[in-house]
Amino acid sequence: MPKEFEFINKIRQQYSLDKIGDDCAVLPKNKTHDMLITSDLIVEDIDFRRSWMIPEFLGHKALAVSISDIAAMGGKPLYSMLSIGIPEDVWTTDFVDEFYEGYFKLARPFGVELIGGDVSKTPDKIVIDSTVIGEVERNKAVMRTGAKVGDLIFVTGELGGASAGLKLLEEGISFETAKTWQKQLISKQVKPSPFLIISEKLNFSKFVNYSLLINRSATSMIDISDGLSSDIEHICKASKVGAKLFKEKIPLHKRLRGVTNNFEEQLDIALNGGEDFELLFTVNPKNIFDKNFDSFFYIGEVTANVGNIELISDTKTTILQPKGYQHF
Amino acid sequence: MPKEFEFINKIRQQYSLDKIGDDCAVLPKNKTHDMLITSDLIVEDIDFRRSWMIPEFLGHKALAVSISDIAAMGGKPLYSMLSIGIPEDVWTTDFVDEFYEGYFKLARPFGVELIGGDVSKTPDKIVIDSTVIGEVERNKAVMRTGAKVGDLIFVTGELGGASAGLKLLEEGISFETAKTWQKQLISKQVKPSPFLIISEKLNFSKFVNYSLLINRSATSMIDISDGLSSDIEHICKASKVGAKLFKEKIPLHKRLRGVTNNFEEQLDIALNGGEDFELLFTVNPKNIFDKNFDSFFYIGEVTANVGNIELISDTKTTILQPKGYQHF
Repeated sequence: MPKEFEFINKIRQQYSLDKIGDDCAVLPKNKTHDMLITSDLIVEDIDFRRSWMIPEFLGHKALAVSISDIAAMGGKPLYSMLSIGIPEDVWTTDFVDEFYEGYFKLARPFGVELIGGDVSKTPDKIVIDSTVIGEVERNKAVMRTGAKVGDLIFVTGELGGASAGLKLLEEGISFETAKTWQKQLISKQVKPSPFLIISEKLNFSKFVNYSLLINRSATSMIDISDGLSSDIEHICKASKVGAKLFKEKIPLHKRLRGVTNNFEEQLDIALNGGEDFELLFTVNPKNIFDKNFDSFFYIGEVTANVGNIELISDTKTTILQPKGYQHF
Repeated sequence: MPKEFEFINKIRQQYSLDKIGDDCAVLPKNKTHDMLITSDLIVEDIDFRRSWMIPEFLGHKALAVSISDIAAMGGKPLYSMLSIGIPEDVWTTDFVDEFYEGYFKLARPFGVELIGGDVSKTPDKIVIDSTVIGEVERNKAVMRTGAKVGDLIFVTGELGGASAGLKLLEEGISFETAKTWQKQLISKQVKPSPFLIISEKLNFSKFVNYSLLINRSATSMIDISDGLSSDIEHICKASKVGAKLFKEKIPLHKRLRGVTNNFEEQLDIALNGGEDFELLFTVNPKNIFDKNFDSFFYIGEVTANVGNIELISDTKTTILQPKGYQHF
């Protein structure tokens, strides 16, 4: 059996499925807008452990990861479908109520309406499939395929936090008893914030400007869910380009220092740790006129070196091997 | 914790979710059409056992149950999202390839395009969430809410087969070794056929006529997934009406005779066994002019006796208690 991404590629080719392979599928909607749709499956003891996550965080995260996929297409989320499978002994607790509380606390400010889904019993594990439907101006979805040689590469925030938070949880540190710096890392793991235009009614005008700027300017985009090294590879493969990343420009989560003082180890976490849910995007340098771009992290450039990702420092260049997350 | 349907009702009221509660959510699409969307979660050892289902049947069924929800709104399926969670030891077999073979064998003639989903590892059980997106003429979706007092109640086919097939599987009879009559029942369980307009290019003109007739005439509709007694209750509750069903007119699957010779036992299977995926619909008697209606089974009438479902025979009337499937 091939690896996960190879398998998806195989299915795509075998059955001529041209809408598969980006953060969302883009479907025709009407004269002004296209529809976006994405699903994320979250499985207990694979993607989370029950002891790590209060139900409220799980409800938040289930929605957040799918909203992030809509953001990665330059879109706006509108509707959500939630399929939850739960063991009988969990059903009899407050779990489901608290799960939905966390879900709606995120859904409401983002203007997302729950429109359906399914509820099923499972033998012993919790499983959630979160589908979000959004829209984007017609033919304006930002695909993974649009990166051009010479484009500049940006990320929207510091990396490695979610992965370091996961490591703390795996070491047995709980959110409740964690020190402040540990809490900041664990929060990135259990309660990620999708980078997206929040309802314009709310007072997030600076944030809205940033989102609009990205959506107008990005030639390609993806959200960092598997890890920077893997996600830049996804863009390179889809766009048939290469990339060079500047080692010293990769933004490391401030609290990684709590985990390790070694720069190379911090860098490894930032490059290969998943689930930061920051956006990774490319922009034609001609369009970098807005000083708001200073708020993003410029980390590299798109090259003609197809399929190769170079990691460049002052002293040497190495080839970066994608080591982000894959299930199989 | 309340029961499944009560819980869904509670969430719907608590968070003012007016798109939840029918076979599909109906969303605005464009000037001529509305969008339909539905999800079904299928869990190993709850909804099926691996020993019962060759992977091909499972791929078929995962899609069929969601297509049936689109049919139950009078719609046409267009796209599908498939989220599959599989244990590592299953991933290394031909399971996934055969699963998709079964899936595409149904998807192609129905004109359904796979546009996305997710693949995840699970600790030990297979889990599938099948989302289907379709469309229907604007404001023409057939809801559960439209049944009116005096409407006639129809089903599209014989009932009880899938439930009887399940019982045979539970008794250890496998599809491969089953006798012909047993195979017919087991097929209804493992490889259900959604009642729907199949691509008009194919030679199913009679079938197309039936589907169009239903979609034009039905005042309310649901697919029989939980069981006739529960599904007629879903219509009655949504439409704020009651119903009387004529005991002798309930169409019993011919092969139920193999399971039991007792009429009352056969009737119990047909009333309370789920997963037949026939359509249950109501029609204003003024519109019963087309002789094609003779191909459906007229089983009862909508009454003003709100919330009560009466089961009527020549000799007596009893109140029918919904005993169809619910997870919790």
